[in-house]
Amino acid sequence: MAVIHKKKGNFLEDFHVGQILRHKVGKTITEGLFNAFTEFNMTTNPLSKNRRYAQRYGFRDMICPPGLVMATVFSQSVEDISENARVNLEYINMRFGVPVYIGDTIESTSLVLGIKLSTREPDRGVVHVQTTGRNQNDEVVLTYERKVQVWKNDLNVPLQDATAGATPEVPVELRLPAYDPSRRYAELAHLTSADTYVEDFTPGDTIEHSRGRVVTAEHVALTAMLDNTSQVHCNQFMIDQNPEKFIGGKLIIFGGIPFNLCLGLSCPDVADNALADIVYTSGRHTAPIFAGDTVFASTEIRGRRDFPGRPDLGVVATALRGHKFVLKDGQPQRVEIFYLEREIAVKRRSHYC
Amino acid sequence: MAVIHKKKGNFLEDFHVGQILRHKVGKTITEGLFNAFTEFNMTTNPLSKNRRYAQRYGFRDMICPPGLVMATVFSQSVEDISENARVNLEYINMRFGVPVYIGDTIESTSLVLGIKLSTREPDRGVVHVQTTGRNQNDEVVLTYERKVQVWKNDLNVPLQDATAGATPEVPVELRLPAYDPSRRYAELAHLTSADTYVEDFTPGDTIEHSRGRVVTAEHVALTAMLDNTSQVHCNQFMIDQNPEKFIGGKLIIFGGIPFNLCLGLSCPDVADNALADIVYTSGRHTAPIFAGDTVFASTEIRGRRDFPGRPDLGVVATALRGHKFVLKDGQPQRVEIFYLEREIAVKRRSHYC
Amino acid sequence: MAVIHKKKGNFLEDFHVGQILRHKVGKTITEGLFNAFTEFNMTTNPLSKNRRYAQRYGFRDMICPPGLVMATVFSQSVEDISENARVNLEYINMRFGVPVYIGDTIESTSLVLGIKLSTREPDRGVVHVQTTGRNQNDEVVLTYERKVQVWKNDLNVPLQDATAGATPEVPVELRLPAYDPSRRYAELAHLTSADTYVEDFTPGDTIEHSRGRVVTAEHVALTAMLDNTSQVHCNQFMIDQNPEKFIGGKLIIFGGIPFNLCLGLSCPDVADNALADIVYTSGRHTAPIFAGDTVFASTEIRGRRDFPGRPDLGVVATALRGHKFVLKDGQPQRVEIFYLEREIAVKRRSHYC
Repeated sequence: MAVIHKKKGNFLEDFHVGQILRHKVGKTITEGLFNAFTEFNMTTNPLSKNRRYAQRYGFRDMICPPGLVMATVFSQSVEDISENARVNLEYINMRFGVPVYIGDTIESTSLVLGIKLSTREPDRGVVHVQTTGRNQNDEVVLTYERKVQVWKNDLNVPLQDATAGATPEVPVELRLPAYDPSRRYAELAHLTSADTYVEDFTPGDTIEHSRGRVVTAEHVALTAMLDNTSQVHCNQFMIDQNPEKFIGGKLIIFGGIPFNLCLGLSCPDVADNALADIVYTSGRHTAPIFAGDTVFASTEIRGRRDFPGRPDLGVVATALRGHKFVLKDGQPQRVEIFYLEREIAVKRRSHYC
Repeated sequence: MAVIHKKKGNFLEDFHVGQILRHKVGKTITEGLFNAFTEFNMTTNPLSKNRRYAQRYGFRDMICPPGLVMATVFSQSVEDISENARVNLEYINMRFGVPVYIGDTIESTSLVLGIKLSTREPDRGVVHVQTTGRNQNDEVVLTYERKVQVWKNDLNVPLQDATAGATPEVPVELRLPAYDPSRRYAELAHLTSADTYVEDFTPGDTIEHSRGRVVTAEHVALTAMLDNTSQVHCNQFMIDQNPEKFIGGKLIIFGGIPFNLCLGLSCPDVADNALADIVYTSGRHTAPIFAGDTVFASTEIRGRRDFPGRPDLGVVATALRGHKFVLKDGQPQRVEIFYLEREIAVKRRSHYC
Repeated sequence: MAVIHKKKGNFLEDFHVGQILRHKVGKTITEGLFNAFTEFNMTTNPLSKNRRYAQRYGFRDMICPPGLVMATVFSQSVEDISENARVNLEYINMRFGVPVYIGDTIESTSLVLGIKLSTREPDRGVVHVQTTGRNQNDEVVLTYERKVQVWKNDLNVPLQDATAGATPEVPVELRLPAYDPSRRYAELAHLTSADTYVEDFTPGDTIEHSRGRVVTAEHVALTAMLDNTSQVHCNQFMIDQNPEKFIGGKLIIFGGIPFNLCLGLSCPDVADNALADIVYTSGRHTAPIFAGDTVFASTEIRGRRDFPGRPDLGVVATALRGHKFVLKDGQPQRVEIFYLEREIAVKRRSHYC
């Protein structure tokens, strides 16, 4: 006749280096999820909006925008890695593999790479993991490392810092359809911006994306849609009972939401002529956002180089930043909320127009 | 040159015992609806999330979670049965039949079993119906009885209590794929909880499910998605004009919403290794919920028995309860909002791991 | 090292008569979008809800409700035509062509028909365009004219009124499946209202539709889902910085939202036995709506006539009006928000029951 409270998620003392966590449930990408995120994030890349265009480019169908791929894989890892986290610290070397199509089933695994105790606070420490998502054919769609600060549950368990040696290499290959001039790409060139080809980007420039988008209470449903089980995004009662324990004293919006939105807001200026996002070398959430905040973004062009083996493409290296405005003494102050080093595979005008 | 106000729904005097109501419109389950509800209710059963898993188990595709099947059939009956209801009283003997897949078309019919006038209030009475939903192949997906208190429109119409004799038997067969060891189920065992097999449940135990989920104004759209036409869920102006007439003086959230959510909140602890919900012998909404309420759930294990003809499965009998917290003198008080006697067909670890 | 603010959308001085704008991105109708709008707008026409019914009538699948077709094509034109508009003035001669199915890809083009400077305000003028949406087979799904008041950006650019001669004829054919008595339509007659056949409509009558539906903050997501890029619907910060510049000082709800909702609210009374909307000869938004407003609708029956070549159908000419209530001295006042002259192809009871 027991009353049972099952533990959800792991605490700091539950992790050990070399541990492999095969995450539960998995997720088939329905047209419902695809629509909710593709439209929420306001992407304007026709590869994720227009089947005719995507198939003209040699994709089997429309492809999931990179933010949805990221949010899906990440969210699958939440219960095991960060349901009992205090704060997510960093994304590292996030690389994309095969495209994700509607109907694909994504399942994810994490490997624990390191544990580092807080030197000042005995109730927390940093877990360093490598998370990899695969489709139903066991092809890698995304792999990345992240560092997250996790609560310790039982302060009496002795722990010590540990780290794997080198990070294991997860074979991941960005798979893109071949360039084929017989496809007459130029016929569809009016569907994308005329000024977002490789030739248009000048390292050093910063583009302030013109649009902003308020995030409403919709974030609760979007987060559930991703299977992110963290209670700080949806348990209003828990927050209200103990607001000073939680950042801002409000439901905090899952980082995958502004991550998606910043990618989308930047799209018409830098990514609607991209064939893929290649890698996010580093990323972090620099401030929280809450329902009612309007998100904006800017992109700094950091570099431009050839894409090996693909004369039709170039790599554009950027820093994508998100921001919101917070009133201070009645005046709006720009606050950075998100930072992402991002490399994109962009079409050359010379080959597509 | 008339101004016409068409009557919507039936009033107490419009029902008679033996009456058959074939409900309008019908509904094809799109991937949009499937996604919205599967994710809203936070189910973690991979049969409704992961096509690879569902097909491994012998289902043709992912299946609708039971709460979506219930909410779809129920909502189809609202215009005819309860658009002019005061309160829904009880679900009785709700049995599931063939699985519902994305793309199936559900249509529903109700049979009036009884009418009972209020002994104290001349303007209302209880209607007792049996509602059955079928798919496009005329197979029963759900059948149940319910009792609902309905307004009388014309107080001058003489009415008297009436009841059918025995409730007609609606043939309904829970259809499950056969057990087949060659399917190597254990390969996918990591996708579900390790402690939710038949062997894990002890009658008498109560599991307090750890997660809660606030319901936002999203309930208006979710209710519309189900084709529930009741105005108390979506007509803000009507409520504001006459708040004292309506429970809580606010838009009340459709019962199908907490019904779904309680099923989902319980899933990681009791139902992610279920192949199906079998029957809800009795259920009722014990308190209303409103936008902003956070819903929690608990499950009492009432019994465990063999599943006839299926040594790989067991039947777990439970009572699922939903609750929220209401402040009283500044202190949160737990208020039960939902009660459901629920039997589930659960896998045995001996056969699946 | 420049900071770049890219211009989005055109201003008055960017338009010239005869200009053809091929709109960007395009859109494949997913089941997610279909579900969100079909359910938001509360249509009860089974052609958009029930695959079994739609196919019985000879359609290949469920069809998009007319409001979704309109909102999709319209929204594709927003960036080029009205991202810098002050107010949308009028829809003219909006005609429907081939049905739009789930999976179809819609792309749109606009032709500039006229420019008329404001005689009183030097910073604005009216742009008159003809917008046409086509599917992946280059078949017209919708074509219409609209007039919109657009801001002038550079007041120093000299402009003058200009107009094309006659409006070019866009060939558009309402394509309906043939009548075929062997389909036994009467078997499904219970899925629609019994009193919405051609024979039921009397010119001069006005039907006050009984249901109302509040529009919540969901409008932000719905508008994004349509690819409408106008900032006045989603940029809360922009509004808050300068509320007196914007109508109502709040995020204004995109006109496509009440347009859809009024069509849907009217459906159970006038359009659930329609095979198609034929033409909207004129339409306009007569007052803005904001989150929290409850929308109602009424339909005035203006005429009834034969449908050439289709003895099974009739044309019902109507005026659809939307309204909300605004408190004035504490009393609710009915305010018209939408007006649409609408002709519908409706089934005759003689042929379908």
